[in-house]
Amino acid sequence: MANIRVQRTFDALFALEDVREIFRQSLPSGLTPEQEQKVRESLAKVREYIGEIEAGGANTGTCPPKTRIGSLEIRTREEEYINIHPIQVAGRLTPEARKAIIAYGDGYSTCDYCRKPFRLDRITRPGIEDFHAELARFLNADQARVTPGARRAFQAVVSALVEKGDSVIVSSLAHYTEFLAVEQAGAIVKEVPKNEKNIVTADATAEKVEEVKRETGKLPALIMIDHFDYMFGNEHDVYGIAKVAKQYGIPFLYNGAYTVGIAPVDAKKIGADFVVGSGHKSMASVAPSGVLGVSNEYAPKVLRTTQMVGDVTKRKFGIKEVENLGCTLMGGTLLSMMASFPTVKERVKRWDEEVRKSNYFLEQFQRVEGSKVLSEWPRKHTLTKVDTTGSYDTVARTHKRRGFYFSEELAERGIVGEFAGATKTWKLNTYGLSWEKIKYLSEAFLDIARKHGLNVN
Amino acid sequence: MANIRVQRTFDALFALEDVREIFRQSLPSGLTPEQEQKVRESLAKVREYIGEIEAGGANTGTCPPKTRIGSLEIRTREEEYINIHPIQVAGRLTPEARKAIIAYGDGYSTCDYCRKPFRLDRITRPGIEDFHAELARFLNADQARVTPGARRAFQAVVSALVEKGDSVIVSSLAHYTEFLAVEQAGAIVKEVPKNEKNIVTADATAEKVEEVKRETGKLPALIMIDHFDYMFGNEHDVYGIAKVAKQYGIPFLYNGAYTVGIAPVDAKKIGADFVVGSGHKSMASVAPSGVLGVSNEYAPKVLRTTQMVGDVTKRKFGIKEVENLGCTLMGGTLLSMMASFPTVKERVKRWDEEVRKSNYFLEQFQRVEGSKVLSEWPRKHTLTKVDTTGSYDTVARTHKRRGFYFSEELAERGIVGEFAGATKTWKLNTYGLSWEKIKYLSEAFLDIARKHGLNVN
Repeated sequence: MANIRVQRTFDALFALEDVREIFRQSLPSGLTPEQEQKVRESLAKVREYIGEIEAGGANTGTCPPKTRIGSLEIRTREEEYINIHPIQVAGRLTPEARKAIIAYGDGYSTCDYCRKPFRLDRITRPGIEDFHAELARFLNADQARVTPGARRAFQAVVSALVEKGDSVIVSSLAHYTEFLAVEQAGAIVKEVPKNEKNIVTADATAEKVEEVKRETGKLPALIMIDHFDYMFGNEHDVYGIAKVAKQYGIPFLYNGAYTVGIAPVDAKKIGADFVVGSGHKSMASVAPSGVLGVSNEYAPKVLRTTQMVGDVTKRKFGIKEVENLGCTLMGGTLLSMMASFPTVKERVKRWDEEVRKSNYFLEQFQRVEGSKVLSEWPRKHTLTKVDTTGSYDTVARTHKRRGFYFSEELAERGIVGEFAGATKTWKLNTYGLSWEKIKYLSEAFLDIARKHGLNVN
Repeated sequence: MANIRVQRTFDALFALEDVREIFRQSLPSGLTPEQEQKVRESLAKVREYIGEIEAGGANTGTCPPKTRIGSLEIRTREEEYINIHPIQVAGRLTPEARKAIIAYGDGYSTCDYCRKPFRLDRITRPGIEDFHAELARFLNADQARVTPGARRAFQAVVSALVEKGDSVIVSSLAHYTEFLAVEQAGAIVKEVPKNEKNIVTADATAEKVEEVKRETGKLPALIMIDHFDYMFGNEHDVYGIAKVAKQYGIPFLYNGAYTVGIAPVDAKKIGADFVVGSGHKSMASVAPSGVLGVSNEYAPKVLRTTQMVGDVTKRKFGIKEVENLGCTLMGGTLLSMMASFPTVKERVKRWDEEVRKSNYFLEQFQRVEGSKVLSEWPRKHTLTKVDTTGSYDTVARTHKRRGFYFSEELAERGIVGEFAGATKTWKLNTYGLSWEKIKYLSEAFLDIARKHGLNVN
């Protein structure tokens, strides 16, 4: 039922894009009779699709062929399913962001009114300059920039502060992009060990700094720690670690890929010199997008402007920033972030409620005997690593579909986003699900367990 | 007239996004009566808007308030105007790309079926792996990757091949992002002088190589030349320059930001070790996006995979590429490029016709006494620098609106994209305009001239 209605919604959107294309092809003096005819034909299709949506899919004897864009199938999992994918849920676009990319999808769509000094963050129409000021306030950082993903923010900071052969301290649960940013600069990662609870502490960080100093004769050039890690979604002591960094005079980068945009983040309160966030992971934005907050202390280095002069032409390029390679998100990516921003600013205030929902679901999840939560408990985040070796996997061992039976049971109940076929240890994320969806999700997990004879407490 | 119809097209698209949002909020078990009611209300609005579009805007006594997305105004210049903006025209999305970002706007939308080895270019659903193979064939390069803009491709190559203090040869008409990529790596640009015709030749490049060798005792680490430059849209001798590079054994990067996606480009025929293109500038894609073609000779360096090992955890991150920082365009940007690609592959075959239209327009343009083309003549590209100091600017000198009178005259005729207020030297680009639009555009320029008493030959 939902299927056809969702599909017809896409069909109607696409037919309207066909109408829009006719306006694009037309002369300012107006449409030709032929173009007018095409507009009417497309609008008639829209009417038809609307009728089918209204009829609830009931009046279509047979399913229409699946809508495609050329060879590309449309993506309907957010409309048709509850998605618990570990990295997708907080990057889902808001309706405002979806509208913004409809309006601002074209290549350099931010550049209509670009004037001196010709830099993205100085454009006032659309209000990109104001957005940057708001973004800095939101992070409580002195300055803010947008970047093509959190990884490009790591790269900018590492490239500006770290020399070849330097050490950079990361968490032993650091995301791979931190490794790559360090490797790209020719430096070396030094991991802070996690404790038995899979937590990175301030003490362990201080010890690691001492170890690096002892072994290399030099302090690490940067400390870069994930507030919540990608593996367990555990909280690490960024406040304590920031103090350690300060004591040693080492710059501290707070990796907020799993916080900025979903939970309150305050750079000054944390004591972070840099705050990095991900647009497509946690700010309801089109990929690749990210944010970088910088303190005034480090801005002159990390946000330094070009000094290169052409030896022949004597050209210089104004105030373009070297590490950002000038302008960064000059189109739909940025506009999606800006359009989602009012919602994002509000939703971070409801973080506690999101965590409560996560805990509620996982309490129900653990009622199935043998199902475990591997992340810290109770949860302080919506991303969680679970272990179903003792529950759903016991079924997989003898099921003809192996682990895929579990994915199929979930899909039948309208749930996607787990790693297909995985029934031992895997990750899920409940961010953004309503209480109704949380309860539905909980019931689905229990239902599958009961169906396959697992004990439910 | 067009205005209201265009606006109502956006309104209808946005109302359908509201419908879509209700499906997103609903449970897999179906809509609640309240949600059902909201769907019906939004669909009723769509019907109303369609009615207004069909009525041609005639039945609306007063103009409706301008559609906004929160505080953001919608962008309708592609629907309502002929756009001749120097950098926007070949980045306009195709209808297919617009549909693709409607379907794939959500953050990590490419990752639904990401499996081992967990790399963007290996994803088979949607067909990202096949697209990469096609892209390599399209460029006639051994391998291809997507990047967040051409600048990030320059950065990847420079970072991999150039050491601090090295020299990199660029054109004296090089784009600023090449300067920044070199500066970011701590190297130094050395410009090849342009000749009196604003062309960079193979001989001048060879001389520059010799000069660098003489002065620094070392060959340049890289030669990076724009096939058509951003300033004049003049063609530079990349074929000859590639030969020079080969003779000296210096890697050669072909900057195709103004060719890849609009004109045929063949890396092997050119003799380029690297081909760089821009998605948002020339491949009808959402920003930031770009492409990098690499020869098998240099792939092991530029596309090298991570070797970093965690000192505590012994973690390694598989085949993630260091210079690309792992995955690059993991959402709507890439999908827009893929959706436009069939059109892009066809349109490059019509490049000669695009150039003919450009020349036709500029012939008409030069009928106004005092209007000059500063780019090479006849044009080999659609991007052109013009000088109207002797024509339209003579009017501006005494006009109460100064140079803005000219922009206003153009806007009244449905033309935008010139640099507002500029009446001396400025740039325009006719790429993608139909013959009808080219003729309309030509007539508009002549008409403005006549109106203000300029001589038209």
